[in-house]
This record gives sequence, structure tokens and C-alpha cells, in this order.
Amino acid sequence: MKLKNTLNFGLIGYKFMGKAHSNALAKLGMFFDNGILVNKTAICGRDEQGVLEAAKRFGWQSYETSWEKLIARDDIDAIDITAPSNAHKDIAIAAVRAGKHIFCEKPLALTLSDARIMLDEAKKAGVRHQIGFNYRFAPAIMLAKKLISEGKLGKIFHFRGFYLQDWIIDPDFPLVWRLDKNVCGSGSHGDLGAHLIDMAHFLVGDFDRVIGMNKTFVKSRPIVEKMSGLSGVAADDAPRGDVMVDDATIFMGEFKNGALGSIEATRFASGNKNAMSFEINGEKGSIKFEVERINELKYYCADDESGLEGFRTIQVTQDIHPYAGAWWPVGHVLGYEHTFVHELYEFTNAIKNQTDCVPSFEDGVKCSQVLDAVDLSICNGAWVKVDDL
Amino acid sequence: MKLKNTLNFGLIGYKFMGKAHSNALAKLGMFFDNGILVNKTAICGRDEQGVLEAAKRFGWQSYETSWEKLIARDDIDAIDITAPSNAHKDIAIAAVRAGKHIFCEKPLALTLSDARIMLDEAKKAGVRHQIGFNYRFAPAIMLAKKLISEGKLGKIFHFRGFYLQDWIIDPDFPLVWRLDKNVCGSGSHGDLGAHLIDMAHFLVGDFDRVIGMNKTFVKSRPIVEKMSGLSGVAADDAPRGDVMVDDATIFMGEFKNGALGSIEATRFASGNKNAMSFEINGEKGSIKFEVERINELKYYCADDESGLEGFRTIQVTQDIHPYAGAWWPVGHVLGYEHTFVHELYEFTNAIKNQTDCVPSFEDGVKCSQVLDAVDLSICNGAWVKVDDL
Amino acid sequence: MKLKNTLNFGLIGYKFMGKAHSNALAKLGMFFDNGILVNKTAICGRDEQGVLEAAKRFGWQSYETSWEKLIARDDIDAIDITAPSNAHKDIAIAAVRAGKHIFCEKPLALTLSDARIMLDEAKKAGVRHQIGFNYRFAPAIMLAKKLISEGKLGKIFHFRGFYLQDWIIDPDFPLVWRLDKNVCGSGSHGDLGAHLIDMAHFLVGDFDRVIGMNKTFVKSRPIVEKMSGLSGVAADDAPRGDVMVDDATIFMGEFKNGALGSIEATRFASGNKNAMSFEINGEKGSIKFEVERINELKYYCADDESGLEGFRTIQVTQDIHPYAGAWWPVGHVLGYEHTFVHELYEFTNAIKNQTDCVPSFEDGVKCSQVLDAVDLSICNGAWVKVDDL
Amino acid sequence: MKLKNTLNFGLIGYKFMGKAHSNALAKLGMFFDNGILVNKTAICGRDEQGVLEAAKRFGWQSYETSWEKLIARDDIDAIDITAPSNAHKDIAIAAVRAGKHIFCEKPLALTLSDARIMLDEAKKAGVRHQIGFNYRFAPAIMLAKKLISEGKLGKIFHFRGFYLQDWIIDPDFPLVWRLDKNVCGSGSHGDLGAHLIDMAHFLVGDFDRVIGMNKTFVKSRPIVEKMSGLSGVAADDAPRGDVMVDDATIFMGEFKNGALGSIEATRFASGNKNAMSFEINGEKGSIKFEVERINELKYYCADDESGLEGFRTIQVTQDIHPYAGAWWPVGHVLGYEHTFVHELYEFTNAIKNQTDCVPSFEDGVKCSQVLDAVDLSICNGAWVKVDDL
Repeated sequence: MKLKNTLNFGLIGYKFMGKAHSNALAKLGMFFDNGILVNKTAICGRDEQGVLEAAKRFGWQSYETSWEKLIARDDIDAIDITAPSNAHKDIAIAAVRAGKHIFCEKPLALTLSDARIMLDEAKKAGVRHQIGFNYRFAPAIMLAKKLISEGKLGKIFHFRGFYLQDWIIDPDFPLVWRLDKNVCGSGSHGDLGAHLIDMAHFLVGDFDRVIGMNKTFVKSRPIVEKMSGLSGVAADDAPRGDVMVDDATIFMGEFKNGALGSIEATRFASGNKNAMSFEINGEKGSIKFEVERINELKYYCADDESGLEGFRTIQVTQDIHPYAGAWWPVGHVLGYEHTFVHELYEFTNAIKNQTDCVPSFEDGVKCSQVLDAVDLSICNGAWVKVDDL
Repeated sequence: MKLKNTLNFGLIGYKFMGKAHSNALAKLGMFFDNGILVNKTAICGRDEQGVLEAAKRFGWQSYETSWEKLIARDDIDAIDITAPSNAHKDIAIAAVRAGKHIFCEKPLALTLSDARIMLDEAKKAGVRHQIGFNYRFAPAIMLAKKLISEGKLGKIFHFRGFYLQDWIIDPDFPLVWRLDKNVCGSGSHGDLGAHLIDMAHFLVGDFDRVIGMNKTFVKSRPIVEKMSGLSGVAADDAPRGDVMVDDATIFMGEFKNGALGSIEATRFASGNKNAMSFEINGEKGSIKFEVERINELKYYCADDESGLEGFRTIQVTQDIHPYAGAWWPVGHVLGYEHTFVHELYEFTNAIKNQTDCVPSFEDGVKCSQVLDAVDLSICNGAWVKVDDL
Repeated sequence: MKLKNTLNFGLIGYKFMGKAHSNALAKLGMFFDNGILVNKTAICGRDEQGVLEAAKRFGWQSYETSWEKLIARDDIDAIDITAPSNAHKDIAIAAVRAGKHIFCEKPLALTLSDARIMLDEAKKAGVRHQIGFNYRFAPAIMLAKKLISEGKLGKIFHFRGFYLQDWIIDPDFPLVWRLDKNVCGSGSHGDLGAHLIDMAHFLVGDFDRVIGMNKTFVKSRPIVEKMSGLSGVAADDAPRGDVMVDDATIFMGEFKNGALGSIEATRFASGNKNAMSFEINGEKGSIKFEVERINELKYYCADDESGLEGFRTIQVTQDIHPYAGAWWPVGHVLGYEHTFVHELYEFTNAIKNQTDCVPSFEDGVKCSQVLDAVDLSICNGAWVKVDDL
Repeated sequence: MKLKNTLNFGLIGYKFMGKAHSNALAKLGMFFDNGILVNKTAICGRDEQGVLEAAKRFGWQSYETSWEKLIARDDIDAIDITAPSNAHKDIAIAAVRAGKHIFCEKPLALTLSDARIMLDEAKKAGVRHQIGFNYRFAPAIMLAKKLISEGKLGKIFHFRGFYLQDWIIDPDFPLVWRLDKNVCGSGSHGDLGAHLIDMAHFLVGDFDRVIGMNKTFVKSRPIVEKMSGLSGVAADDAPRGDVMVDDATIFMGEFKNGALGSIEATRFASGNKNAMSFEINGEKGSIKFEVERINELKYYCADDESGLEGFRTIQVTQDIHPYAGAWWPVGHVLGYEHTFVHELYEFTNAIKNQTDCVPSFEDGVKCSQVLDAVDLSICNGAWVKVDDL
């Protein structure tokens, strides 16, 4: 019999995201305390050797090679999905039907309709459901949210966001799974743009209408033989396959509150490694954020003494900053992985307090809606009302 | 009788731009020498007291209160137009018909068709014609051009440019001439966006198709009583007039060479004073530029030794850098005004060498074409092929 | 019976540093693999309730309230000391005499002579001994070391380092243990300056002679009632005690290789939270580092193509960068805490391979020697040859 | 007969500084108006061809080849000395004895005693005397002064300044006049350090005691054949001469108000072109400045709302900022040369208003005193009380 305050996790996937979640769950109990004891009960992956090794390495108490089996286990309270995107739907639906709370990596699904089904099922099941928009949980972003909520920026006029990478510029970089439409649904748009869309939703509000453009700069690539992390190896004489996803997607739009937004996602921005950044301009101030300097928030306060206004570089590592107090003394910086600890902490909070998760599958659906609206606008060469989808 | 190597300037306008050009002409001879002696022969403005004072202050040998008279003078070789945009066309046509070389501030005209007429007249007259896209002449931009021309960025994938200001956020800021459609043709789009369009033309190439959006956040403003610089004063109980120009215009497009571009111009970006910036990403490298740090060019070279790649901050003040050697020792920085010295220096070079000016009215027309294409795309809510205009 | 490749740790201390080490040991096995299984066997602290809680929270298998008992345990292979500085000596000597490998937080001891005794004992015992100069283990620093070792900077001319904090500017900030000479030996000098001295040793070489100055800006402070992290609380009417340590220490010196160095440590630099930074200038290039942007190394290569030289911002997160490949994809940044994982990983490597630890107690002694030489130079108002101590 | 409000300048020197002053005097009347009409009456240099050309190029009405003659002219009101440092003393004394107001480039003289004689003579003559510490006149520095004067930083704890260049690292760079002790008095110390000493005086106050170290990294260099700007050319087989000046000087000290200071000047800091920078930390805030980003002042206000504190990047180009309103609209940046316009504007103000110049020869003497005190401390290997000199 389970103890009252224990929460047993079953994690699906053990690669990049699986590692990030395993690490986060391990650190949760070390640095945060909401009275819940998180257990890393079981990890799941198709390759037995791989998942066994991952279980040992990341400290999971057991493993499964079938997600169906994992979900069927009585001793699992929550399912955490980090499997490839095309597997999200089936797993999530099965999990919620089995009464498990569910945490699912973004994007929720490959299509908006699938995402909606997932949301409906989760609601019907009455479980907690959260989506992995981890960047919300950087202390700097939570501080930005606080500033905006308190009215410190006033009415918002602009959101401009960029997610720039450069890892597939080489035309001989192989056709890895992240470039496979069947696995990922889209390329830079769903992988990178999705984070910015969620950021815009979180900080500014809903889009009213959008129009986009995209491009696949490299139209065919060598078929991959063996994946390794996000990269992979192709034989020298590997046949080339068509790239079916976008290398870059840019769109602009109007928010329901009247602000203008533009979002660009690309894997062809030489010199940019993981350069997610955005700026928000409001009547009373502005903020800027770059994820590669994740501990910093730039803030301009138009009400500063005249002549002394300027963007401040706030180092968001003070005890009073969101989540920061749980870690190290001021100025001792956090990294990318801490966002996962924070999001999973909130997941356990929501389960404990029986409150809605934020961001929930609903936010996942909203993101998919914009992703699809942009794609439709590209097909049609015309503006799309987001609510029409 | 004029000496052989003398070039007599007649300048129209003595406010912000008139001051910038007067200063530039004064410095030209101090810092550059192409064998031409530039004379500040006459300055012209409608208000006699104002123009007389300007003439004395800026060292002009004479003044006129009518541009027709100025153009009629035999002792003037070149007309330099810094008058408001709505006056450009008539002056320019009269000047070139009188055989004067002509330098005209941007935008060339309020409409594309007017711009085309101006170009035709200038060509017919066989005079040198240049347009004031001064930012091209920052040493950092000329260095960027060199890098791109030499193939250091390889094939270009992306241009993203921003021109952000914040001077009219206050809804009670008066309806100054820069906000008057009849005088300026447009708002942020023609004033700010035009610079970036030209930058894109200069560094990347021609646009194939564009689509835009714009917004006037503040729909009415107090009617101005008295202008002062770019600002002005309105009475406390001043009636409000409709704002007919855009506060912000954003557009995206595809270049003919396949690169993607996005350009945003806004006067509602709190904390940004004159923040023109852009980034260009190519196959082999990238560059970034911010006009408020006009002496710096950021350059990423993908061919740098593996593990040591990174955006370099090049301080473009070495003797071997474009124009820099004419000024101060390395590291002794230049400012905004130096771009005007450089562009007028090139103007005198073109006159001396009987070569085409760069940028010429042709570039002015091309810029107007894109400006208009964007406006049309906004009206129609649909993509516009630039060459269709 | 212990398995062959197991290494059982006993950790002394569970506050800031104890937390950092516990976390690091937990992550070691998740992200690094040298064939050694690290066990968090026992944690030790004087307060039973506190240490019990820490044991549970940080995943230690057992706990002790006496370090003597901990050291006496057969099942402990290595002792890791994060207790206050004044306790280092006794613990370390006892530990090495008991044949335990030893990892000790900096500073090694309160005085040079104590440090030397510790080193001698460790050598005599034949155990592995390492000191916790964790900043060496930032990937950016290891990259800097590599650059310098490969001769990329050429002959070194300058090292200038700063460790700036601002947490005790308020004259009513209480007299916490970090300000207690009996516990810490010194103030900013030993706490902050020590890191920079080690950095200089690591990257440039040994000091030949030094001269310093220091200051205690606030001469008395309220006596603390209750510590909390690095801060504490004093009663409103708390009596004030004399501050016996330096608020700031600045020194300059010459290295044995002829380079010049200057190092400043202060807790009175408003706005600076944990601002350790340094710059090294050599014949062929320079580097700059700021610990608050721990993922970045600035590198200037004088051999870059003429006119294109500039400090590069290298994001040290590529797979080929030191330690980075063990973590996340490029651009997904690390934080402060990762330096502890790396240093403990190297500790286990040294134990496994029976090689000397780097940095060892010898480096701790060398650091103490410079610390003491500076203090002596301050007493005497004259230069001190470091080797004279 | 001269008109009442005319001020006739005689300038000695036409190289780097002569050019900077000529340009500044030309711009003075264009951008500033204090009722005084500045005439560029005569320029003086030993080489007739050179000075004639300079006169034409920079718009001087006449020229002289002997400074004695220049000083003897009745139509000259003020003498502006930009000749090499070893010529300052004789010229200045003759000029003030002839009743001319005097502006003298830094350093005032090669030795403290000479500087004192110059000051005495100027005082005795009752003329206005100013020294060319031009960096004070960057708008950002004047804003810093204002902040400090208003108490915005509170009690000052630290000043740390750096003037880093890299132009003579090559051991075959020739022995130009800037490296000649007879002409310049010292190397980096007097050339670069002097600016920082003055900055410290201006913003923090007087030094009480100092101690320094210096180094000549390259002990002999090829004897120069022909100077060109700050550089020069030596024959391939040129004999080498001993370098008698310092390549780098570092010193630290205590201010009379209790603040600690450190100043480093070097020409061996690879990658740094003209990198003068400093930081000042006070009880209530801090500022940072870099002259290569001359339009920016970084300001930290400890009183900002808790959790929102951070260094602000103030762009000092607003109308209300010192001098900025005379130039361009906000965000249109100034450069190095504008500091000369401002300082000469203040010189004419002092003459007009019969007030003391700031900085005067007195400030020049104070700077020399610190320069000498540092040199003495280096000779003696011991602290020197500045007032003892």
C-alpha cells in the first residue's frame, strides 16, 4: 500500500528529454519540498538494453519495454511522456483512461485535432494534465510574468520572438528523426516556434489572426543510418530522402488585445546554437530575454527618473525571485535543466492541491491551434483567424 | 569663373537633416581629399530669419528663401534636398532639369510613381543622382558589404531587421509633421522601415514578394501648435486630429535569391531610442549590427577552428576599415553624423569620376516599390509580388 | 564486502557547500561514467535533526553526528569536507591518517602553516587529496586552459581578476560566521580572492612577488543571533562586535614568468552579486571570463584575418568542449552547480587511475602562500616575495 | 579692431590632436552658442608645407612656423597647445606671459615641478588656463558626475579603472616618439593612466597614498625612420634602441575619502584598441563606463524596487543629457571627437564669464603629482603619500 504523500512516476523515453526529466525528478526532492515524496518508479523504452542501462544510470526502481504495461501498473500514479511526438496521443489517452495523471512533452500531438482529443480525454478522466513548455519555468520568465501581471509594462504593443539554431545547415547532415514529418509533424515550426507561441500566450495573450511563410532550404538529405542524440550518421553513399519539414518558419500576427507579434523559428541561423529570445514592448516598459543567458531578464521601466532610464540587466538569482531561493546564493547561476525541475515541481503541486496544471493540455491545444493556423496561412497564402480552426 | 575642381552646393532645408548635411559638408574637406573643393554656396529655407541664422551658424556663403531661385543660380553645381518628403519631387525635377547634380534625402517621394518620375527625369538630364540612405556609409556596414561580396557568409538564408523607437507612445504627444500623411506619406514604415529595406537591398538583394501588417495604436492626437525638432507643443485644450499614418509596420518576404526576410518598424517600442538593428545569416557565417553601437560589427565565421567559433565583436575603427582611416586612431569611435560625411564624399567622387552614384535614385525607387508593395499587401490582406508594382 | 568499482563517500557538512556536493554526487553517476559507482554512504553534521533531514533530502544512506565516527567507519573510502574553514585541518589530518582519500573545500586551512601540515600528512598517507577550487571546472575555464596550453595566447603579459559582491554593504548586516576571523581566517581575501589566485595559478603560473592593500569599511556590526544561509538575523538591539576581517582586499604582483597580475576581492561592490571575472592578455590573443555568464568564454585571436579581429563570444556548450558533451545539446546552458560535478568526477578519476588530483592540496598550499604573502605585504607596507613564506 | 564677442584662437600642432582641436573649433559655432564667435585665426607648426596644408584643410585663416611668432601676434586671444609634451612648458609660459588664455593638451608637462611652474605662471598672468582631459566631456561622464554629486551613489568605496591598448605588442614595432622618454616623459602611465587619474579625481576625489608597479615588456625596438600618425616605419636593418618608458603601469591607492582605487594602463592588452573603462561602487549604487561605447553609462541603483535591481544601460543621448541636446535626436550617437567640442566650449564659457576653467592647470598638476608619486613608489618599492610630493 502506498504511503499517503507519495507520488510514483512512470517515465516514457530515456534520450534527451528522458534524461532531462530523470534528472529533474532526482533533484526535485533535494531542493523543493511540498510534502510529496516523488518516486522514480519505472522508466520505459522499447530497447531493453537501453532502458535497463538508463534505469540504472538515472536511478529508476524498475523498467518496462512496453508503455502499455507501464500504464497498466498499479503502482504508478503519473505518466511522464518524453517519447517522440507521434507517440504522444496513444500513450496519453491510454494513460488518462487508466486514471494516471499525465505530463506530456510538447508538442502535444502532430495535429490540432489529435491534441483536442487528448485534452478531451484528460478532462473526461479528471486527471491532472500538464504540457512541457519548460521555458516558462525559468525564473526570469516567471519574473517577466509577474511584471506584466502587475501592470508594469502597461498595455502591450509588441511581441517579437526568435528561436534560432544552426545545426542542419550542412546539406549533408542526415535525415534524422527531427526532420521526419511522420515523427515530428513539422520542423522548426513545431520544435522551436512552439516554445515561442506558448511564451506569447503566457505573457501577452491569445492570437487573433496570423500569416506565415516557411522554407526548406535543403530539399533532400542522406538517409540516416544510426541516430546519436539529435544528430546521426549516414553512410558515405547513403541515398538521399526528401525533407518534408520546414527548415524555417516565420509568421506574424495580431493578438486579441491588439498587440502585434512576430515569431521566427529557424535551424539555418549560423552562429546561433539555441538562441531563443524575445522582446515585449508595452506602454510603461519593455522586457527582453535570451535563453542562452537564462539567468538574466532585461527590463526597461519608462517611469525611471528622467534621464536615467535604460534597460536593466536583472540577474534573476535572488532569494525573492521565483524558484531561485530554493537553489544557491544570489549570483550563483542556474542552467537549462532547472526549468524541468520547476515544471515538475508545479505538476506535483497541482496534483497535491487538486488544482489545474499550468500549462495544461489546454495550452498545448492552443499552441497547436496557432501552429496549424500558421501552416494553413502558408498553404492558402492568406491570413487565418486562429479561432476558425 | 569657377575653378575646375570646385563643387558648389545648394542645400534646401536647415533643420535636423539640414544640420546634418551642413556639418558633413564642412567636415568633408577636413578629412577627405579627392581633389574637389566643396563650397557651401547657398542654403535655402522659407523663413528668412531662420535660414539667415542657419547660414551664419553653419557657414554657408549665401542663402535663398525660394528653392526655385536657388536652382536658378548659375553658381550652384549640386542641389542637396533635405526638405520634407512631400517637397522632394518638385524640387528634384526642377533641379535636374536645370542640370544640377542632385542629392535627395530618403524617401525619394511619397509614392512609387512620383519616385519613378524623379528617376526618369534625373536620367534624362544626365546628372548624378544620389539618395540619402546614410546608414550604408557606417564603416561597419561597408565592412559587412565587403564580407558578403567576398562570399564570407556564403549563400544567404535570413535577413531580419528592426527599427525600434519609442517617442510617440504617449497618447498626448501631438500630431507633428512626421505623423502627417500629406507631408510624409507614411509613418514608421517610410521613415524607419525604408532604411532597413535599403539595407536589405544593399546586403542581400531584391525582394520577390512581401506581406505586411501595420497598426496605428493611437488613433487621434492633439493638433500641434509649434514644432520643435522632431517634437512639438500642443495647447492644453488642443483639438485632436486623426492619425493617418502607421505607428508600426511589420512585414516579411522572400528575396529573389531565396533568402527569407522580415522587417519591423515601430515607434512604440518602449526603451528603444533609435534602435535600428539587423542580423544576416548565411551558409558560412552571420553578421549582426546595431546602429546605436555604430562602430561595431558582430561576425560569426563558421570556418573558425572547431570549438572556438563565436560571434566576434569587430570594432570597425582600424585604418584599413572603410572610411575609418580618414578619422582617428583605432578605437577612437565615430558617431551617427559621420555617415553623412561619407555619403557626401561618395557623391562628390561620383561627380568627379562621372560614375553612377550608389545609392542612386534607382535605389530610392526600389525602396519605394517595396514600401508600396507592403502597403498594398496590407490593404489586400494578401501577398504582393514586388515586381508587379 | 564492497564491490570492486565502488567508491563510498562520507560528506561532512550539509549547508550551502554540503548541498552543492550532495547534488554533484547524485548527478555524477547520471551524466558521467568512468566505471566507478559512487555511493553517498554517510553524511555528517553536529545537529542530529539537521543532518538526518539532510540525509533524507539529499539521498545519503546513513548519517553521523561526529566526524571522528565518520572517519572511523570502514565502509567509507573518501571524506569530503565542506565544514567551516577552521575545522578543515583536524578533520583532514584524521581522515588521511585513517587512509581515506580526501576532498576538501577551499581554503585548505586558516593559515599557510596549517595548510602545509595538511599537505604533508596527505602525502605521507599516500591518499588522493583534492581541493575544491570548483571554478576551474567550468567548461569555459577548461577551454581557456587548453587555449593557453596550446600556445594560442602566446607569452602572457597580464592577468586581471575581480571577485565583486555586495551583500554586506548595509552597516547593520549582522556579524555572520563569514565575517568571523576565527572561523574563516579572513574576509573577502580568503573567500573570494582565493578563487582568483587559484585561477591565476592554473592559467598563468606562480606569483613571484606581491603587494596588497585592504579595508574594512564597516568596523562593527550587530552580533548575529541566528544564521540562515550566508545571512543571518540580529536582534534590533543587538550589541555590535568588531569586524576583524577585510571587506575588500586588492593586490598586484608579478608572476615568475614576467606577467603582471592584479586581483581584487570585495563585498562592497554594489550591483555585483557573484561577479567573478578575469581577463588574460597574451602576445597572440586574449581571453575574458565572467562566472555569471559561466557558459561563455571571450577569446581574441590576434591572428584572425586583418580587419576581422574581435573578441569572440564562444558558447562553451558544444559536445567537443570540456565536460559539455556529457550534458545537453549545444546551447542548452549549464549553471554554477555543474562545476562541482566535474571536480568530483575528476576526483574519482584520480582515485581510479591512481594519479595525482588536480588541484591537489599542493595547490591549496600555494594559494594559502599567496594569501599570506598579501597579508604580510599589507602589514609591512612592502613587497613580499611569495617564496619567502 | 576686434569685435567684442570674438575669440581668436592660435593652435600649435596639426597632427592627431591638432586635427581633433581644429575639427572641434569648426563645430563649436555650428552646435553651441554662448555669444562668442570663435575664429580659427592661426595654426602653427614647424614644417611650412605641412602647416600650410593643414591651415587650408582645416580652415585656419593664417599660419605660422614659429610658436614664438604666433604668441607675439596681437590678433590672437587664446593659445591652444597640441604639440608634443616636451614642448608644453616653454610655450605655455610664453603664452600666458603674453596675456593669452591657454588651453594645453595633457599631460601638462614632463615633470611635476614643470607642471607647477606652468600653473604658477598662468595664475600670475591672470589668464584662463585649461587642460585637455577631454574624456570628462563625454555626456556619459558628465551624467556620472551629476549622479555622484547628487549623492546617488552615496559614499564611494571603489574606483577601478583600465586603459588597455595593444598597438606595440610586436617587438619590431619601431621606437616612435610616444615611446621616447625625452618627448613624452613616460609611456602608458602618462599617456593612458593620466586620463584615469583625472577621471578618479573628477568623480571620486584626491588620492592619499599610492603604490605601483610597471614593466617594459619589450626592452629594445628598431629606431624609427619616418613617423606616420601614432605609428612609424623603421628600415629592415634598423639599429635597435632601448625603450626607456613603461609598456604597462599598474597602481593602487587609497583616496582621502577612504575609497580604494586601482588603475592600470597598458599597451600590451591584445584585442583592446582604446579600451578605457572604469567602475565606481558606492553605498547606494554603482556606475560603469567604457569609452569605446562612449554613448552609454551603466548605472545600478540599489534603491530600485526589490528584485528588479540591475545595471541599467543608459543611452546618454537625450536632450536633457549633458551636451546631448545640442546635437542630434535621441539615439543618434556621438563619437570620440565630440568630447573636444565640449571641452573647448567650456573653455570659451570660462573666458566669457571670467570663471575658472574646469579642468584647469591645477588639475593638470594634481594629475602629475599622482603620476610622479606612482613612479616614486615604483622606484622605492614602497607606498608614497601623494601630498608628500
